[in-house]
Amino acid sequence: MTSMQNLRVVLVATRNPLNIGAVARAMSNFGASRLRVVNPYERAFREAVSAVGAVTVLREAEECVSVEEAVTDCGLVVGTTAIGNRDIKHPLRSLDKAGTVIRRHLARENVAILFGSEKKGLSNDDLSYCHWLLHIPTCEGHQSMNLGQAAAVCLWELARGSKSIEEGVRRGSAKMEIAERITASVLQCLLNSGYVAARSKELAEEKLRRMLRRFSLDEADAEVFLGMVRKIEDELKRKKPESTN
Amino acid sequence: MTSMQNLRVVLVATRNPLNIGAVARAMSNFGASRLRVVNPYERAFREAVSAVGAVTVLREAEECVSVEEAVTDCGLVVGTTAIGNRDIKHPLRSLDKAGTVIRRHLARENVAILFGSEKKGLSNDDLSYCHWLLHIPTCEGHQSMNLGQAAAVCLWELARGSKSIEEGVRRGSAKMEIAERITASVLQCLLNSGYVAARSKELAEEKLRRMLRRFSLDEADAEVFLGMVRKIEDELKRKKPESTN
Repeated sequence: MTSMQNLRVVLVATRNPLNIGAVARAMSNFGASRLRVVNPYERAFREAVSAVGAVTVLREAEECVSVEEAVTDCGLVVGTTAIGNRDIKHPLRSLDKAGTVIRRHLARENVAILFGSEKKGLSNDDLSYCHWLLHIPTCEGHQSMNLGQAAAVCLWELARGSKSIEEGVRRGSAKMEIAERITASVLQCLLNSGYVAARSKELAEEKLRRMLRRFSLDEADAEVFLGMVRKIEDELKRKKPESTN
Repeated sequence: MTSMQNLRVVLVATRNPLNIGAVARAMSNFGASRLRVVNPYERAFREAVSAVGAVTVLREAEECVSVEEAVTDCGLVVGTTAIGNRDIKHPLRSLDKAGTVIRRHLARENVAILFGSEKKGLSNDDLSYCHWLLHIPTCEGHQSMNLGQAAAVCLWELARGSKSIEEGVRRGSAKMEIAERITASVLQCLLNSGYVAARSKELAEEKLRRMLRRFSLDEADAEVFLGMVRKIEDELKRKKPESTN
C-alpha cells in the first residue's frame, strides 16, 4: 500500500474527538498515516479511545491553523460532500469514479482528501481550496454518513487493489475417479434403502452422477464424504444380508 | 438499490449497542433495511444514539436466539473475518471479489452477511453456518477494524453500481432451512451407522454442516438429496430399533 503514504487526510473543524480517533483507526487499517487536523472543536483529540491500533497515526497527526496550510504539499485537493441542499459550484465525482482518478494521482504525488465538521461539512471557504468534490452515493433521504464510516469507505476505495491480496485458494477439485466411487456407493445405499428400485437403476445412476457433479466436491471433502457413504453402505448391507439387488 | 433489500445484516453477540446503531446508520445510507441481532450483550440496543437517520432500521431489527434462526430464509450465508490467527477452514474471498459474487446472488435471493462480536469475531459454531468467508484486506498488524466501519465498507461495496446485473445462470441456492434438515438427517445416518460416535456428535455436526455448505446445493438438488438421505435414515432406523444414540 505504498502510494497510500502519499495521502493526507484532512479533518476540518471536527467536533467529536472520537470521530478523529475513528478516522485514524481506518487510516491504519488501510495504510494511510498522514493525518492533519484543522481547528478541531476539542483540542484533546490525541487521547481518543476510538483510535484502536492507531496511536501512531494520532500521535503524529499535524495540527494546522488553516486548510491552506494543511494542503500546501499536495498536487490534488479533493473535498468530500454529502451534497444535500448545498449549491455545488465544483465538479463532482462519485466515489468509484473519484477513486480511479485519485489512485492515479497518488502514484506520483501527494493528494489531500478533506472532511468537514459533522454538523455542517466543509465551508465555502474550505471548498475553495479543492480541485473538485467527491461524494459517496447514498440513498435518498439518508445522505448523512458518520464521519468515521465515510472516511473508512473512502480509504477502502483508495486502497483497493493496492496490495497483493492473499486470495483464499479453494482446494483442488476431487478427481473423477473418487467421484465415481462416491456415485457407486451412494447408488448402492439408495438401492439397499429402497429409494431406488432395481429396475430403474441405470436412469437413477445417471441422474445421481449429474447431481453429485454439481456439488463440485473438493479433494479433501470427497475423501471424507466417501468414507461416510461407505460406512452407511456397509451398515445397510450388514442389516439385510439376504437382499437381492 | 432494490437488490439491497435482499440483504440481511446479522450481528452476532455484539457488545456495544453504539456499534449496532452505527451499523444501522450505514445500512440506511446504502439501502439495506433488514437487520438481525443474535444475542446482543446489551439488550437495550434500539435506543443507540449512533443510529442517526436509522431509527426505522433499528426499530424493525429482528432479535434472534441463534445464527440458525437468523439465516433461515437466505440462500447464501457469508461470514466476515479479520483472519488474524484463526485457522481458517472455509474458502476465503477478499471484499472486492466477494462483492461481485454477493451482488449476483442479491439479484435473485436473500443473502446474510454475518459480523461477530467486537472482541472475538464469529465463533466456529457461527462459522459452520457460512458458505464462505469475506475479509477486508487491511495492513499487516492493523487488521482489526471497528465494527461500524467494517460494516460501512462492506455495504458500500455491495451497493456499488447497485443495478440488477443479471448473469445468474445457476438455479437458486437451497434455503438454509432445508440445508439444516439435510445436515440433521445425514448426522443421524452417521450416528446410526456408527461412523460418528454419540460422544463426538457436536464436533461432527459442526464439521458436517461446514462440508455440506461447501457443496453449495441448489434448490432442486437439495430437495432430492434430502429425500435420499431421509430414506436411508429410515432404513437404518428400521434395522436397529433398539439402538440408543
